[in-house]
Amino acid sequence: MKALVYRGPGDKGLEERPKPQILQPGDAIVRMVRTTLCGTDLHILKGDVPTCAPGRILGHEGVGVIEAVGAAVTAFRAGDRVLISCITACARCDYCRRGMPSHCETGGWILGNAIDGTQAEFVRIPHAETSLYPIPAGADEDALVMLSDILPTGFECGVLNGKVAPGGTVAIVGSGPIGMAALLTAQLYSPAEIIMIDLDPHRLEVARRFGATHVIDSGAGDAAAQVMALTGGRGVDTAIEAVGIPATFQLCEDIVGPGGTIANVGVHGCKVDLHLETLWSRNITITTRLVDTVTTPMLMKSVLSGRLDPARLITHRFTLDTIMDAYDVFGQAARHQAMKMLITMAEG
Amino acid sequence: MKALVYRGPGDKGLEERPKPQILQPGDAIVRMVRTTLCGTDLHILKGDVPTCAPGRILGHEGVGVIEAVGAAVTAFRAGDRVLISCITACARCDYCRRGMPSHCETGGWILGNAIDGTQAEFVRIPHAETSLYPIPAGADEDALVMLSDILPTGFECGVLNGKVAPGGTVAIVGSGPIGMAALLTAQLYSPAEIIMIDLDPHRLEVARRFGATHVIDSGAGDAAAQVMALTGGRGVDTAIEAVGIPATFQLCEDIVGPGGTIANVGVHGCKVDLHLETLWSRNITITTRLVDTVTTPMLMKSVLSGRLDPARLITHRFTLDTIMDAYDVFGQAARHQAMKMLITMAEG
Repeated sequence: MKALVYRGPGDKGLEERPKPQILQPGDAIVRMVRTTLCGTDLHILKGDVPTCAPGRILGHEGVGVIEAVGAAVTAFRAGDRVLISCITACARCDYCRRGMPSHCETGGWILGNAIDGTQAEFVRIPHAETSLYPIPAGADEDALVMLSDILPTGFECGVLNGKVAPGGTVAIVGSGPIGMAALLTAQLYSPAEIIMIDLDPHRLEVARRFGATHVIDSGAGDAAAQVMALTGGRGVDTAIEAVGIPATFQLCEDIVGPGGTIANVGVHGCKVDLHLETLWSRNITITTRLVDTVTTPMLMKSVLSGRLDPARLITHRFTLDTIMDAYDVFGQAARHQAMKMLITMAEG
Repeated sequence: MKALVYRGPGDKGLEERPKPQILQPGDAIVRMVRTTLCGTDLHILKGDVPTCAPGRILGHEGVGVIEAVGAAVTAFRAGDRVLISCITACARCDYCRRGMPSHCETGGWILGNAIDGTQAEFVRIPHAETSLYPIPAGADEDALVMLSDILPTGFECGVLNGKVAPGGTVAIVGSGPIGMAALLTAQLYSPAEIIMIDLDPHRLEVARRFGATHVIDSGAGDAAAQVMALTGGRGVDTAIEAVGIPATFQLCEDIVGPGGTIANVGVHGCKVDLHLETLWSRNITITTRLVDTVTTPMLMKSVLSGRLDPARLITHRFTLDTIMDAYDVFGQAARHQAMKMLITMAEG
């Protein structure tokens, strides 16, 4: 089969690989139909993710069709269409039972990282019954691919951890795909204001179309001062950090109001300064989270009901044969006004 | 009247001052019966609290008797015995209505800071109806003085923010009076283990007597490694920071387990390093809080029922005439094996 393989820092290629086989009774083999690229794939390609060894097939998002199942799998059978979660969950360990499969003792984020991933014709999914979701007939599968990772990440790490609520004021720092996922899902809780902050005027224009009530170009003036002016000097109830660098985390510290929450979503490569000399008395909360995808069924219902349309995040379409071009576009997202790349595979 | 006055950094004295008068209809004048010293008073004396100007009478804790009330005060009358909250609450502003009077727009922590405090024969209490609590006849007032600040601080900022729960594992970093207040009140929620960490063997011995299940002398080896060994490598559910320096906050970052909480109680004078490069994916929560004293009535019931005995924190007793000696002892707490200083005033 064809697969996109990480060969080491800065190096990747579309290679011919053996089709995966059932290894454990809980496994399923899924024939891929749709997948996408994630910012985390770019982190891996930079050599920033030590758990991902050269030779690994990348990808942790996708929709497909069950090809075969192991002896312990009774919830799915060949031919079923399924959504793949980026988080593999055993459903048995302490962390899974606490609703935190991101830290599953035999799973977590392993797809396209510690085991081969979804940017291929076929993929092996361990703990299949609790790591795959059935797709109802007629569902918009372009939209559902966004539920493997990016939508639950923005929602769980940003919106839920950030306690977004009716009447609240939310600032989202970073208008990339993850910030946009937070923007789309924040609206499920009807906050009074959503302030979107980015350096890219095009992304801010998209954010406005996606429901931001205010946008701030942080390259064109003091973003913190603008947020404070918008909030009567009080600061925001929720600051969602969706970039992953010290400057954007600092901005969240500067704009969070007394009693507010900084919900970190960004993947950070270095430490940040936490200004406890001012924040110690401000009754704030800071949260971090690797997505658990425990809200995937809820988000799927929101998509199926038409309340949420994450297919709006898709800006470019490719096939598995042209996935190297998809990486080129995604790697220069600003220049191409790119958000999510959809990769489709020929069916039948 | 006699009063302990902050004269500027490093300078204080017992002075003769005019008795305070009713200034607003919501005021009460309270004749002081008991007060105590707080670590925050030492911060002020170092010159670290810019809101506290020279000339200020210190003190924000105490028990007393109502001497006079303003026209708007109907809940109290002369002769009532009252507990003074360190937080003055108007009960009307947005923050008060959200249960966060620490940020009250006309109150908050002002006693012994922006207005004259309780280390005096009399004190004026603004917003008296919602900043004083009636004391039932026969109550142990030595214990109740601890409910002005230190008990609710340890409880709200440490135990409640830290989500201490039955079966949980708690580490308290710092065994001073605030760490001890967290230790005493954590037991209201019956955690499985409470690990107390300090540099002072005497304080660790006291902590064991007060209910710690494990103690770690952080001067005698790698405290983080010992906590990880005690928790099977998982880390703690709750890490309470009760010191206020970068090293102790760092220790909390090192020992908090996936899904755990760092509850900051310490008053910090400088920034700390937040290691988001490892913590971003660990599903942790960090909280800060200036005590709101919203749990004072609940803590009072726990004291009156005999479930909680904060008088155990009192190690030394003085009168207002000898309060300068109390500061000397408190300022060298380790040498004197000192926790809380009780200052009593003669009652007529």
